[in-house]
Amino acid sequence: MSKIVQRAPDYIRSISPYIPGKPIGELAREMGLNEADIVKLASNENPLGASPKATAAAQKAIADIHRYPDGNGFELRAALVARFGVAPEQIVLGNGSNDLLNLCAAAYLNSETSAVYSQHAFAVYPLAVKSAGAQGIEVPAKAYGHDLAAMLAAIRSDTRIVFIANPNNPTGNFLPDEEIVDFLDGAPDDVLIVLDEAYNEYLAPEQRYDSVAWLAKYPNLVITRTFSKIYGLGGLRVGYGLAGREVADLLNRVREPFNVNNVALAAAAAALGDEEFVARSYAVNRDGMAQLMAGFDALGLEYIPSSGNFMTFRVGDAANVNRRLLEQGVIVRPIASYQMPEWLRVTIGLPHENARFLEALAKALLKGAE
Amino acid sequence: MSKIVQRAPDYIRSISPYIPGKPIGELAREMGLNEADIVKLASNENPLGASPKATAAAQKAIADIHRYPDGNGFELRAALVARFGVAPEQIVLGNGSNDLLNLCAAAYLNSETSAVYSQHAFAVYPLAVKSAGAQGIEVPAKAYGHDLAAMLAAIRSDTRIVFIANPNNPTGNFLPDEEIVDFLDGAPDDVLIVLDEAYNEYLAPEQRYDSVAWLAKYPNLVITRTFSKIYGLGGLRVGYGLAGREVADLLNRVREPFNVNNVALAAAAAALGDEEFVARSYAVNRDGMAQLMAGFDALGLEYIPSSGNFMTFRVGDAANVNRRLLEQGVIVRPIASYQMPEWLRVTIGLPHENARFLEALAKALLKGAE
Repeated sequence: MSKIVQRAPDYIRSISPYIPGKPIGELAREMGLNEADIVKLASNENPLGASPKATAAAQKAIADIHRYPDGNGFELRAALVARFGVAPEQIVLGNGSNDLLNLCAAAYLNSETSAVYSQHAFAVYPLAVKSAGAQGIEVPAKAYGHDLAAMLAAIRSDTRIVFIANPNNPTGNFLPDEEIVDFLDGAPDDVLIVLDEAYNEYLAPEQRYDSVAWLAKYPNLVITRTFSKIYGLGGLRVGYGLAGREVADLLNRVREPFNVNNVALAAAAAALGDEEFVARSYAVNRDGMAQLMAGFDALGLEYIPSSGNFMTFRVGDAANVNRRLLEQGVIVRPIASYQMPEWLRVTIGLPHENARFLEALAKALLKGAE
Repeated sequence: MSKIVQRAPDYIRSISPYIPGKPIGELAREMGLNEADIVKLASNENPLGASPKATAAAQKAIADIHRYPDGNGFELRAALVARFGVAPEQIVLGNGSNDLLNLCAAAYLNSETSAVYSQHAFAVYPLAVKSAGAQGIEVPAKAYGHDLAAMLAAIRSDTRIVFIANPNNPTGNFLPDEEIVDFLDGAPDDVLIVLDEAYNEYLAPEQRYDSVAWLAKYPNLVITRTFSKIYGLGGLRVGYGLAGREVADLLNRVREPFNVNNVALAAAAAALGDEEFVARSYAVNRDGMAQLMAGFDALGLEYIPSSGNFMTFRVGDAANVNRRLLEQGVIVRPIASYQMPEWLRVTIGLPHENARFLEALAKALLKGAE
């Protein structure tokens, strides 16, 4: 190991990189398959694609790719103001909502601090915490979901951030709004509460709640959302944070000046206005979830009730089952790195994709039993 | 100030955000002008636009914006390997080269460390250093350029990074390769030397040098480059770092897994192959620089000889001259925040843009003298 690598802090050298869903092109190269024959249900993408309005806006924006993007995101910010009734100064735009999580860590964490998150919660929380040199406090899950009472009790005097995912990825667990409000009431007001709502738009009508209204009461709350999921823009990288003006101002100070590209800014503003597409995406997801649950039941597989656009199910030797799915051109997500080595996560796809997945799964389990 | 803001470290609260070039849309809104009548020469963008090959690749990539980008950037990485003869593991892709500068800071800096950079150097260096809580050591410039001997002498035992820009922005100064090699030979091998070559492709033939070859000898060297300048893709946000395998591995650990969007990945790979476009962009820049120098000479204005795609010239009361240029629909860049309150920076444009700028400048100076 060269001297320059030894010089990096231990906490950087010990980071394990994030393991993404396998890209279609990569599997095609590895297995000698045609890309068109591969079904990817590994990254919680929208199986309908992007909204036609967003696609049209993206195409139009190509004309200006030689110009730096508007670092203030005027148009997208205006669209978010109109949608949520917040002030423009309460908005922070990010290179995906991943960027927002990192901005919170950059603004609040260093080697003298700690951050709290749940077991089985999104992998980027511990990554962001470790990159900042802070200590991660992982709180054991309750039935694969967040144990908010235990998370509240885990807050220490050096804790600066608590990450809460609702619904959680990769387990799909949902926290009712009254539990989150209780948490906000109980938490110290000098600890940043980051409420990650990447899958918010997939909640059923009876689950929905108005977290944006909470911002007026809790200046230590940051809500993060994304255009990567129901809006179908994961490739473009755009998400946003909503917070009180003071915290939003801090996050904007550590933000890279041009962190969101111009195609993403244009597409996101258009996507926000395409309510028909969002409604259709919601319906496809609801129907697909019923299809998958029926399939899991028929196969006698345990699964976690999900409030997102994915389902997590138990197969035992998940590494082997995953390999057999890949051989059949079906990409799902192993979640051993989430301390769930017996489980796989599948994104809810179109009806024929779900059917193809269930057929491949049945074969993979059969082979596993041989 | 709420408790949650007081909780952020002082070094975060005291950050002054980066001031970008004014977007065309913003000036149009402010002044009631037509966007088509505005000439923007403020952000060192390529006046020819993007390469037709890159534009075509970007348009094609729109079909996949609902899919997460390939976090490993397989195709672009392969194109860079073919171009530079480095191993794939020596490449780090960034959301613009700004992202690379931040990754270096994230991997090496914290509140126990310092970083060295030059006076009048790119504003993102002190921003990245401050965001990481480290101390910035600004070394006085020599004739508006880097004083490498003084920078070498400024390295302390707690220094982890030296930032060197060649050519430098916003002054355009150039450092001959032998001076940089001397610096690399003299610097401790446990200090990261970040050589920012965002404007490298604008160097004249007699200035060019093979910094990539240096990587084999100096494991503490990181070269950063961008597709935002001569390749005309500033809106898409894509740059890259080249380094030894060990340092590249560290930087990839702190990188956001999907930091570069799919449109940028596709466009950048195509742009790298369009040598005709790069040659044409270089020629337009060389001719435009001659046009601007003649114009400055005619107006009796001092300017700094530039090796980039911009020129920095002295007008005295730059804030007022800038305002008069804006009133005429011409956007250039004030650089008071670079400790150069009497200077303006103008991007070299197309012949008619340069002419329009010089006419507007003559009027602005005349008014200033009234």
